[in-house]
This record gives sequence, C-alpha cells and structure tokens, in this order.
Amino acid sequence: MKQVYNFNAGPAALPRQVLKKAKEEFLDFQDTGISIMEHSHRGKHYEEVHEEAKNLLKELLSIPDQYEVLFLQGGASLQFAMIPMNFMKPGEQSGYILTGSWSEKALKEADKFGDVKDIVSGKASNYASIPDLPSFSPEEYSYVHLTSNNTIYGTQWASFDGIDHPFLIADMSSDILSRRIPIDKFGLIYAGAQKNLGPAGVTVVIFRKDAAERANEGLPAILSYETHIKNRSLYNTPPTFSIYLLKLVLEWAKNLGGLEELEKRNQEKAQLIYEAIDQSSGFYSGHAARDSRSLMNITFTLKNEELTKQFLKEAHEQGFYGLAGHRSIGGCRASAYNAVPLEACQALRDFMENFQKKHDK
Amino acid sequence: MKQVYNFNAGPAALPRQVLKKAKEEFLDFQDTGISIMEHSHRGKHYEEVHEEAKNLLKELLSIPDQYEVLFLQGGASLQFAMIPMNFMKPGEQSGYILTGSWSEKALKEADKFGDVKDIVSGKASNYASIPDLPSFSPEEYSYVHLTSNNTIYGTQWASFDGIDHPFLIADMSSDILSRRIPIDKFGLIYAGAQKNLGPAGVTVVIFRKDAAERANEGLPAILSYETHIKNRSLYNTPPTFSIYLLKLVLEWAKNLGGLEELEKRNQEKAQLIYEAIDQSSGFYSGHAARDSRSLMNITFTLKNEELTKQFLKEAHEQGFYGLAGHRSIGGCRASAYNAVPLEACQALRDFMENFQKKHDK
Repeated sequence: MKQVYNFNAGPAALPRQVLKKAKEEFLDFQDTGISIMEHSHRGKHYEEVHEEAKNLLKELLSIPDQYEVLFLQGGASLQFAMIPMNFMKPGEQSGYILTGSWSEKALKEADKFGDVKDIVSGKASNYASIPDLPSFSPEEYSYVHLTSNNTIYGTQWASFDGIDHPFLIADMSSDILSRRIPIDKFGLIYAGAQKNLGPAGVTVVIFRKDAAERANEGLPAILSYETHIKNRSLYNTPPTFSIYLLKLVLEWAKNLGGLEELEKRNQEKAQLIYEAIDQSSGFYSGHAARDSRSLMNITFTLKNEELTKQFLKEAHEQGFYGLAGHRSIGGCRASAYNAVPLEACQALRDFMENFQKKHDK
Repeated sequence: MKQVYNFNAGPAALPRQVLKKAKEEFLDFQDTGISIMEHSHRGKHYEEVHEEAKNLLKELLSIPDQYEVLFLQGGASLQFAMIPMNFMKPGEQSGYILTGSWSEKALKEADKFGDVKDIVSGKASNYASIPDLPSFSPEEYSYVHLTSNNTIYGTQWASFDGIDHPFLIADMSSDILSRRIPIDKFGLIYAGAQKNLGPAGVTVVIFRKDAAERANEGLPAILSYETHIKNRSLYNTPPTFSIYLLKLVLEWAKNLGGLEELEKRNQEKAQLIYEAIDQSSGFYSGHAARDSRSLMNITFTLKNEELTKQFLKEAHEQGFYGLAGHRSIGGCRASAYNAVPLEACQALRDFMENFQKKHDK
C-alpha cells in the first residue's frame, strides 16, 4: 500500500488501529454472524456500543453528571438551526462571537428566528485572530455562541478564561477531544464527528440538563433536544455504524492516555509545522496571529499563487493529501487532527524545508 | 462463522457480497492508501461515489429527468418535519392517509405547522389493511401524504392506481427498491436507507424539481430542500461512508437484474412465509388482510402469548434474528427485505412447520 499523509480537513484521517479493528469484525460482530451495521438499534449488541460510546466520551472529556451526551445527525449545520429553534424567544437577544465562516453561518441561521447580535467580529482583520471580547452583562443575551476552532482561517481559542455567560454554547466540531476543556463553562457543546471523533454522519451534543427547561415547545420532535434526551438518542434509528466507529476512536484515545496525552501530541505536531513556517524567513507565511494559532488547522501561503500551486502539486505527488486551503480563501492548510501521526507532520516539515531549498531563489 | 438468518426490521440485513467488497477496500480505497471514509467529500474519489450512487438509483428506479435525487440525514423522522416546513402554507390544508404508526407520526409533525386532515384512517381495524380512499378533489389539499409500506402492521399498498394528486408525497422507507413504482405519480418520495438501501444514516429523497417552486422561504438552510438541490447534497458534509455503501447495494441490485428481478424474489420469499401461515390451520395467524399483505414485513401471532414467547425463544436459538414484533404491538414479524436471501425464508418456513408439529397439540 502506498505511503500517504492524510491532512484532510474533514472527513479526516482516522486512527489506523481503529480502521483495522473495524475491518476485522466487519462481517461478524462479536460472534453474532452479522455486521454491527445489520444489528437492530434496539438490540443488546448495539445498545452496548451506544452506551459505551457515551460513557467513554464522558470519561475522556470529564463531563460532569449534570450533562447529557447526545448522538444526533445533520452535522453542525443542523445545530446552527436547532439552537435558535430551541432557545430563541421573542423579546430576547442572542449573542454570536464571529471568528470565521462557521460562526457567520451559525449567526445567519439564528437570524431567521429572532433578534441576534454579533458581539464582536474578527472579520475586519480577515479572521486572523480571536478578537478581544467587549464586556457584556449576562442579561443582555439569552445565550452566547462561539466557535472554538476555525478550520478555514486556522485560528483557535487558546483559553475560555475571558468569557462567562450562564448559557454559553460552543461549536467544537474541529477541536473536540484534542485538548482539555472546562465543560462546566458551557451550557451546550456540539461537534460533527468527522474531524476528531469518527466518520461523517454523527454529531455529538453535550447538553447541560437544565438547558432543557429553557427550550421552546411545539417543535418538531426530531428537532427538539428534549426528545433526544428522553430517548437516549434512540428516538429514531441512529447512525449505528458511525457511532460504533466513534466508540472505537474513543477507546483508542483512552488507551493512548486520554486528553492530556492527545493535547501534548497535538502541540508537538503543530509546532513542527509552525516552526517550518517561522524559520522560513518569509518563504511561508502563516495566516493566523501567533496568539490565535490553531493546533488543528495550520494555514499558510507562499509568496505567490504560482508557487502555492507548485507546492500543492509536488506535495500531492509525494503523498500529502488535503493540503489545499479551503476553497473560500485558498492558500495551504494542514489539518493535523488527533489521528494524524507525528510522523506525518515530520514528513510535512521535511517536505516544506526541501521545497523551500529548491524554490527559494 | 455461525449460520444466522437476519430478519431485523431495520437496521436490516445487507447483501453479503456488498459487505465483503466494503471490507476488502476498507483500508485502501482504489489504491489511494486511505479509507473512503477518510477522503474529503469535495475530492474526486468521493465525488465519483456520490454521483454514481445517484445515477444508479435513477437507473434502477427509472426516475425521470425532472426529478432530483438527494442524500440527506435524519431519517424519515426529519422528513416528517421538513415536508410541512417546506410545503405547508397559511390557508391551505394538507391531507394524510393513515395506514399505521409511521403515517400517524408524519401527520403529528405536520399538525405543528398548519391545517392537516386525515383523509382516511385504518386505525379502527387496527391497521390490518390499506383503507379504501374516499374521493377528494385535488384542490382540497396542498399535498397528500401516504406511507407505502407499514413495517409495524405488515401492510403495503399493492398499487397506487386509485390515488391521484398533483403533489403526492410518499414515505417509502421500508419498500423502496423492492418493486417497480410509478415515480411520476409522486412529487416527493423519501426513504431512510436502513431497510432496503444501505446502513442507517442516510435518507434518500426523490424530488420532482417543480416542487421547489412551492417551497416556503426563510427556512434554515439545512432544512430547505432547495439548499440540497442547489448543492447536489453537498451543502454540508454528507454521511460519506453510508452513501458509499448505498452505492455498493445499488450495484449489487443492478447486477442481480434490477427491480424486476428483486420484485420476483421478494414475492417468492414472502409467499413462502405467508403459505406457512395460511396452511397452519390457524396455528399461526397473519395480522394483515390478504389484499394488503406486505412483501417486506410479515406479521403474525400464535395462539397465545406463551406460545409466541416459546416460538421467539426457539427461533433465536436456531439463529433467526429479529423475529419479535414491534414493541408497540408484539407478536412476530419477519422482515424479508431485499438482502434477505431466499434460503433464509425457506429456513424460516421449515422452522415454522417444525415448531407447529412440536407444539400443536
């Protein structure tokens, strides 16, 4: 099999061990003679997978007891809609912190349901950094929404120390499980699985139970968080195979040493590439301001369009996948999620250095 | 590996050949060195899968050009909500034909958005048959909704000859791809994949393009059919692995001989079990009226609760999975979807006959 380094932004690399294990039991799950995919979601074999996935996530992220873990469908995009549908009320205002395209999209959906305020936006500086927050009082907003990591611009909240609100909501699609987070600061956290957690098709929601009291009534059952809490994410048929893979990814993360170890690895991995940028005397230039650099998505450009194209072409030929920047901003992006091994980042750093030697004239 | 016969109601059996093929290329899709799951949904490898799945479905179901095929998430339950959100308007009434629990659920969701009428209901006869339709004029309803096959009660529309409406909507979750259907009678057809099409996690929608003109504006992007039509079901990250498996299932169906062959096989399979019921002199009694019998879900009871339990126990011991009736009505149910082989139905018939010999005293 050819040697490749998968830096895809999502769907992204999955741990090799996880894929091997899934392949091994693909046709015959736990001696039942059928695939886990063919099991009923109401049967004990799947039920165990479902509960184990939930418990492992609680354990790994140190989720306190007053939170529920839900497995939904529809990705972050459906959460953009479900949040205002469930929590916006006439006469109230919700606050959105804009740090990139995804938070813009989240705001745009909320705007369809009521009064929305962009508390602060990094747009003027082309989302190169996480902006300083203006002070606000909790009463101003029914909830406050932020995006913890911005895949397109390559920025990330280094810490959540400066922000406090009784109902803080975070889209953590692209950095969940990559570092320790103070869950209890948040009322609701959501994340599409396809970056750090598993394959596309399942969305994790971490929901502080008291938030259910704030929810609007009369919603379609499938779009009400309460439905899923009451039914333990089994209201309708869940994406069973995606949740099974999520469980395997969580087991892998636990065996590795959990969040502390993953955080350490992710820092080390990202540092390799940021160093290659910083030591290139401007041959590579990073998009994100240093204090806002993402450990997940490292965005950079080369001196000109032509050189960028050449870089992407040669990289692809040498087995580096997914290094083109998002179609909305161009340039280059290396997504070094949990499952991307250190060796891939070392290889990329070496490639970047060699490419510079060859082309920096 | 042990010999089992999977009669699960959904998630259900998948064709063995499909699972084998998926296993084979699980770690290395088309010599790319990574799994199809790890490919970007914007990359050419996945794009090809996506388009092929769409084209195969169009070909197999003879879907005319004026229809779009969409791959969404959220199952039929999300369609129950999206349909009224997109198509109910003030001052108009929509009509629902009630043939079981799923159509009841669909109506209940629509009722949250406007004026809904149950055109006819089979509830009084415990949903044992597809009721005769009262005549109505097209202007009475903005759309008319039906459920083509009723998994819980084991009934199915034998034909759609008696029903005409310019915007007819059908939930075909449990019998799509099992027989030929007159697509052009319908404005919208939807189906969760986990019975006849693939694993749980993807929902197929067949959408007559002119229906987009009827749709309400201002909806959340993810809940608007128009969004998905415009973006070829790539507005957000689709459940790529589920769609890949769907593609393999469709290839399998095509190689088998398409709908005509599947229809023949399904008739043959169901007949084996219905005969065992009919020839049992009342030892087994079918739930559905003869003219409404489903080829997909064969529901029956035994003389008493105790015997039913014994039947399910012995069947399970002999490798028959999923024969318990839905928790809402009890009894027994054999779901003989496309991927259930003839041999499984023969084995079940034999088991039923032997069980009767042993216990019919």
